[in-house]
Amino acid sequence: MRLVVIGANAAGLSAASRARRLDRLLDILVLEKGKDVSYGACGLPYYFEGQVRDLDDLRVYSPEYFARERNIRIRTGADVEAILHGRRAVRLASGEDIPYDRLVIATGAAPVPSRIPGSDLPRVFRLHTMQDARRLDSYLTGRQPRRAVIIGASYLGLEVAEALRTRGLEVTIFEASNDVLRRQDPELTGVLRERLQAFRIELRTAYPVSVIEPDRVGGVVCDLVIQSVGLRPNVAAAAEAGIELGRSGAIRVREDLETNLPGVYAAGDCAETTHLVTGKPVWIPLGTTANKMGRVAGANAAGARERFPGIVGTSIIRVTDLGIGMTGLSTTQARREGFDAVSRTVEAKARPRYFPGRSVKVQLVADRSSGRLLGGMVLGEEEVAGRINVIAAALSKGMRVDEFQHLDVAYAPPFSAVWDPLLIAAQQVLPLLHSK
Amino acid sequence: MRLVVIGANAAGLSAASRARRLDRLLDILVLEKGKDVSYGACGLPYYFEGQVRDLDDLRVYSPEYFARERNIRIRTGADVEAILHGRRAVRLASGEDIPYDRLVIATGAAPVPSRIPGSDLPRVFRLHTMQDARRLDSYLTGRQPRRAVIIGASYLGLEVAEALRTRGLEVTIFEASNDVLRRQDPELTGVLRERLQAFRIELRTAYPVSVIEPDRVGGVVCDLVIQSVGLRPNVAAAAEAGIELGRSGAIRVREDLETNLPGVYAAGDCAETTHLVTGKPVWIPLGTTANKMGRVAGANAAGARERFPGIVGTSIIRVTDLGIGMTGLSTTQARREGFDAVSRTVEAKARPRYFPGRSVKVQLVADRSSGRLLGGMVLGEEEVAGRINVIAAALSKGMRVDEFQHLDVAYAPPFSAVWDPLLIAAQQVLPLLHSK
Repeated sequence: MRLVVIGANAAGLSAASRARRLDRLLDILVLEKGKDVSYGACGLPYYFEGQVRDLDDLRVYSPEYFARERNIRIRTGADVEAILHGRRAVRLASGEDIPYDRLVIATGAAPVPSRIPGSDLPRVFRLHTMQDARRLDSYLTGRQPRRAVIIGASYLGLEVAEALRTRGLEVTIFEASNDVLRRQDPELTGVLRERLQAFRIELRTAYPVSVIEPDRVGGVVCDLVIQSVGLRPNVAAAAEAGIELGRSGAIRVREDLETNLPGVYAAGDCAETTHLVTGKPVWIPLGTTANKMGRVAGANAAGARERFPGIVGTSIIRVTDLGIGMTGLSTTQARREGFDAVSRTVEAKARPRYFPGRSVKVQLVADRSSGRLLGGMVLGEEEVAGRINVIAAALSKGMRVDEFQHLDVAYAPPFSAVWDPLLIAAQQVLPLLHSK
Repeated sequence: MRLVVIGANAAGLSAASRARRLDRLLDILVLEKGKDVSYGACGLPYYFEGQVRDLDDLRVYSPEYFARERNIRIRTGADVEAILHGRRAVRLASGEDIPYDRLVIATGAAPVPSRIPGSDLPRVFRLHTMQDARRLDSYLTGRQPRRAVIIGASYLGLEVAEALRTRGLEVTIFEASNDVLRRQDPELTGVLRERLQAFRIELRTAYPVSVIEPDRVGGVVCDLVIQSVGLRPNVAAAAEAGIELGRSGAIRVREDLETNLPGVYAAGDCAETTHLVTGKPVWIPLGTTANKMGRVAGANAAGARERFPGIVGTSIIRVTDLGIGMTGLSTTQARREGFDAVSRTVEAKARPRYFPGRSVKVQLVADRSSGRLLGGMVLGEEEVAGRINVIAAALSKGMRVDEFQHLDVAYAPPFSAVWDPLLIAAQQVLPLLHSK
């Protein structure tokens, strides 16, 4: 009995490892197109900021580790060109056919090819893979660029902007839409713009770049351009094999992560999942979701019966000293989904006033008629992750605002105010609701 | 229409303020036995540690503030001796009768009178009220004691121990039971003992103090003794008036916080509430619960129809640099409540390994047959409050471990590892359950 996994990163290696844990005898083979496996892609910007000393520190495990410790074979440079499900085999670009009994597709996502003229100029970079990082690294070291333009106010775009600014470069960010981070939240965009400005990074929103000139972008003179204009799922072979895609273009899966082909699972950035707030399929490629889906896909491919319920769209980013946590839907997003959304943002001290400590901003979004929480945002310099995770936990159980206001959250002066800003936000949203 | 509130601290003033917000015309009178109102009693230890500069900084609002800004009268030195519900009046110790239409009892809790001989010696202190604090303050300043004994490894006992040690005193803590903080968790006791030792505070558990001698306790020479051996609800007048008490000895209330007497509400440290994990009435006096209950009691006394669902028993304490968050039931507590409890404690790095950051310990307790989470503990130096609050939110919605393991918690290298220790703990508990 052989399990083949396509893709040796978060989802693929989680799947392989979990399958091994549940089945000691399974033959497990992981096929990786590139030469790098098991690395923390989310750490790439922090290498350029100087937080991570060596690019190789981002590698979590080597293929040898997997072979030795987990009896999992990884073949790098193995580019799967086709899935021949009728014959239960995948075909490599080399022409070799590799049979499988169960298949996990964990092919991830890749940057959308840029349509902007000039994208292929030598000073234009991406930062999606280890290879991208090595290329950028040698350019930074060798050429000492001084002025960078970032195209796209995405997570990566903002992180890279800060990393480059920390290294002393002048940095300008161009974002085509009105708002940052695809959150459609003018408040967030405002806060971020201010922070970036204080750090002398210029953010230009509603500014689609139409051409990258050899020495400038949008009138800004620069000697380095980094493009971060979105990802798309790697699904060519899957689609070709008759595997259904969802409206997002990613692979449609059931709750057990099986595709429409029996015995073929998909996990991670190439697959859809369910948004637990809207109940609809969604594609939000994130490492943390990829790992969770990988575990479930691997378990089920090894004969278990687990389910991955879905996500609530939680994410977090640090911009200078400010932590920004987001989960669920923003007000605009909620309205687009048909909710009668109301929201409030409060700013409150995170500790008693006789205790040192800064303030935290909390935004809650709720459905006016049902009183159900729909989303939230936390901005601050401490305990941002914890607070956004409380909202995420509440969202995943469909909690109402009246329940949320009474959450029994921890209180002691070194940690929090007697009324945590989370609860104050809930108190402020309640009067806006029909059902209190 | 007059609302009388007995007690001018967390619950009482929250009730009065909320009632005012909902009813501009209500006559609101708050009766306070002592002379201090609206102060942060939880901050008292931090004054002695030097974190809070002046005892008066612990005062949140003055009676004048309430009169001026909220049209709420506070009478200090007004000791309610009896509740004459038949006549809808309270009688003060002075003999004066004060009529009410609605009554909120927020009389709080007080230290259990000590039965230990020697408790009335001049070097023996408590730290429950502002007055206690002033007395201790003048002793510390005037007499410069050098060796302190703390009786009771309660929250207060531990916080005071650290405060005194920080001031340079030698400190020994005696605890009658086997474990600290009434958690009945040997693991917690072990971690705490180690921390305290490193800070040169000695913790002696299973050591009931039978006598306080003039210069020593339990053989330890000392010139200062602080007793922290438990609280009991202030319910004499309420009980006398025929208000039902629960088995805990605190006032029994309905979900709307009304007592068995119509129009008479109780809130805060004098009242019971529901433990959402056991579904049973419980008495856990804490400032944060008092504030929440006060708000609900005040709203309902002003004609609203709100409910206070209950608590999950969340608390947090800092001991030296270690944050300790607890919620729900410990394994021992869960077994005593009849659950087939299983638990696991994991220690994991809170950030990716290529990123600086310490590890965090997470303990989860679950019911083997249903898979439901019953409690948890988090120990660490950062983001402890946030993590324990996620567990608290999960408990308050009856979340199962299989749901908890898939929580969509925030991930980015500066904030967390791709597998948060919370999720790893859940993964470790799952195999112990019947229902996965």
